[in-house]
Amino acid sequence: MQCDRLWKNARLATLTGEGLGIVEDGIVAARDGRILFAGAQADAPSLDPAETIDCAGRWITPGLVDCHTHIVYGGNRAHEFELRLAGASYEEIARAGGGIVSTMRATRAATEDELVAGALPRVDTLIAEGVTTLEIKSGYGLDTPTEMKSLRAARRIGEMRPLSVQTTFLGAHALPPEAKGDKDAYIEAVCHEMLPAVTKAGLADAVDGFCEGIAFTPQQIERVFEAAKAKGLRVKLHAEQLSNLHGASLAARYGALSADHLEHVDEQGVSALARAGTVAVLLPGAFYFVRETHKPPVELLRRHGVKIALASDSNPGTSPLTSLLLAMNMGATLFRLTVDECLAGVTREAARALGCLDSAGTLEAGKWCDLAIWDIERPAELVYRMGFNPLFARVWRGK
Amino acid sequence: MQCDRLWKNARLATLTGEGLGIVEDGIVAARDGRILFAGAQADAPSLDPAETIDCAGRWITPGLVDCHTHIVYGGNRAHEFELRLAGASYEEIARAGGGIVSTMRATRAATEDELVAGALPRVDTLIAEGVTTLEIKSGYGLDTPTEMKSLRAARRIGEMRPLSVQTTFLGAHALPPEAKGDKDAYIEAVCHEMLPAVTKAGLADAVDGFCEGIAFTPQQIERVFEAAKAKGLRVKLHAEQLSNLHGASLAARYGALSADHLEHVDEQGVSALARAGTVAVLLPGAFYFVRETHKPPVELLRRHGVKIALASDSNPGTSPLTSLLLAMNMGATLFRLTVDECLAGVTREAARALGCLDSAGTLEAGKWCDLAIWDIERPAELVYRMGFNPLFARVWRGK
Ligand SMILES: [Zn+2]
Ligand SMILES: [Zn+2]
Repeated sequence: MQCDRLWKNARLATLTGEGLGIVEDGIVAARDGRILFAGAQADAPSLDPAETIDCAGRWITPGLVDCHTHIVYGGNRAHEFELRLAGASYEEIARAGGGIVSTMRATRAATEDELVAGALPRVDTLIAEGVTTLEIKSGYGLDTPTEMKSLRAARRIGEMRPLSVQTTFLGAHALPPEAKGDKDAYIEAVCHEMLPAVTKAGLADAVDGFCEGIAFTPQQIERVFEAAKAKGLRVKLHAEQLSNLHGASLAARYGALSADHLEHVDEQGVSALARAGTVAVLLPGAFYFVRETHKPPVELLRRHGVKIALASDSNPGTSPLTSLLLAMNMGATLFRLTVDECLAGVTREAARALGCLDSAGTLEAGKWCDLAIWDIERPAELVYRMGFNPLFARVWRGK
Repeated sequence: MQCDRLWKNARLATLTGEGLGIVEDGIVAARDGRILFAGAQADAPSLDPAETIDCAGRWITPGLVDCHTHIVYGGNRAHEFELRLAGASYEEIARAGGGIVSTMRATRAATEDELVAGALPRVDTLIAEGVTTLEIKSGYGLDTPTEMKSLRAARRIGEMRPLSVQTTFLGAHALPPEAKGDKDAYIEAVCHEMLPAVTKAGLADAVDGFCEGIAFTPQQIERVFEAAKAKGLRVKLHAEQLSNLHGASLAARYGALSADHLEHVDEQGVSALARAGTVAVLLPGAFYFVRETHKPPVELLRRHGVKIALASDSNPGTSPLTSLLLAMNMGATLFRLTVDECLAGVTREAARALGCLDSAGTLEAGKWCDLAIWDIERPAELVYRMGFNPLFARVWRGK
């Protein structure tokens, strides 16, 4: 069989099945950007590659998938961080222009080019660690033009870099000041102005919301989900991060791709996720950065068979994190996820949380040939180290 | 005045005095590897540089100083980490060859070349973040030949890279199995075999010990300090990490450069450090990785005026961390150090903890011209971000 490229002498973590899917003497063959074969050298068909790469025993995993980021935004919140450490109160920080509204203002003020230019160094940092699929949410515009500008910036990043970008419309992220506290009216605008405009322009692959006392009620989120459903878009939800409003059950009821954060989810919510096949996306970077102490119920998720993904949650306010390797270390250190769970969480389960498991997340024939090739002796090293990047090479769509 | 290089249009954090020493419109001039002038453009003498670099408003800080690492070792402990996450008991891990003894065995088995080759990628990761001075401890040999091999490897790293390496002899790190539990006899060997051999070969710039229930008693450490003193070497101590054995007071009594960890230090110990001018080196990477919950008493250290440094503690067992930027974020997030304290902790105070404040750690005329030049808008960004490296350029001894 003819193929474009062949990676040989590799150890594979294919991530097929339930575990890591380890193959000791493995090869990967690519044709037309897709995997033609991935598996044991001994099981391979006869291959006629145009190019052969000797991996010298290095490990190949699927390209990493960061399935939850807010990486497109204006400004940053370093000064707010500094003020808080210096003992400033929330009121003082608000007066100094802090909080999500400061990011909204900076995002509104930025041009699309500026948003792209600001995000690219962060995206490049993820790419340097082997990320090949990246989800990017809007949600710092909170008005139609800025939500659309943010999503266009996200799409452009996918055109500018060898990277699959999936966009998520998160109009229901926070209430903008001009709404003057009227959450229902704002949700009305999300459903009947922003979402139609965004979908008409083909800018959103999914719809997300923030269900929390400081954000929106389950009833308000339900309206957003209904509007998404009417447009044929899958949903996701920021649920149970700070309290238990039963957002996980709501997400499950709408067949959500994922419910994210979940520190305060209860067994009823976990059971609902399991039945719906909704992925639990854990975000240890935010847990760490906001010094949360209530951990997501990992044991409960395991017992109910809920799939667990890990993501960076890259955002300026609660998780200025641009490393999936570090997200894995935090998942293990802070949440006691196993090495296998961490690695599956940034590959197979992250792809599932984006609804793209048919084309990414594992090394299987027919999927995109997105690979991360690592200078390591065992996969555990990817989780164990902190601040060290052992990526040897990265392949996106066969190149 | 003639000079070799001039960096202009920079914002400086000189770290002179107590705070960050910010200069908005600053320049740095270097001659013969040393700083000829660092300060406001307006205050500069007339300079005649052979080369001028326009920093376009970027920030310059002193090159970073990592004042506590065990970065030279054989093997790694990723498998032990994996087993522990999978629920293995300490006994099972010991049977699987885990713990410090496994690192000792791998370090003894490695050649000096192998130790250098293993450490260099880790060192290069620190260098890529602007580290210009690096402390490296022995302590995984626990016999004379391997302690010497490790220190020679450390010295070679300093020759192979544009980096000032300071070596520390840490024979009193742990008890090797062949000592069969006889700590006093091992300490005797540390003092009268290892230390003389190491000093005769000029391999140690300082002497360190581990004062803890699982390591050595204050009485045993005192014998090591006496031996160091007899050789004219300054001392440091791993103190009060897991319990309070009054190691800080012991260190202070010997005029130690630093007492390190200090999670369990009490006010008497803090007061002793203050009186002796001994630096408190905090190691948040180890605190995080071993999931310690008892924080070092930062408020007490401040109240007594103890200088605080931050380091990576880069080591395979309790802090596989190779990022001072991340150590700063952890210092802020986990220990509530301020931005100024974090930055001083990896520059001025880290240099003080190594006894090299006369030549490094601040931007002052006469010191080595070791610079880190950053693509940031304010110094707080160095502490706030996680997994992002905004280093624009690094200068070691003027180049
Ligand atoms: Zn989020
Ligand atoms: Zn140490």
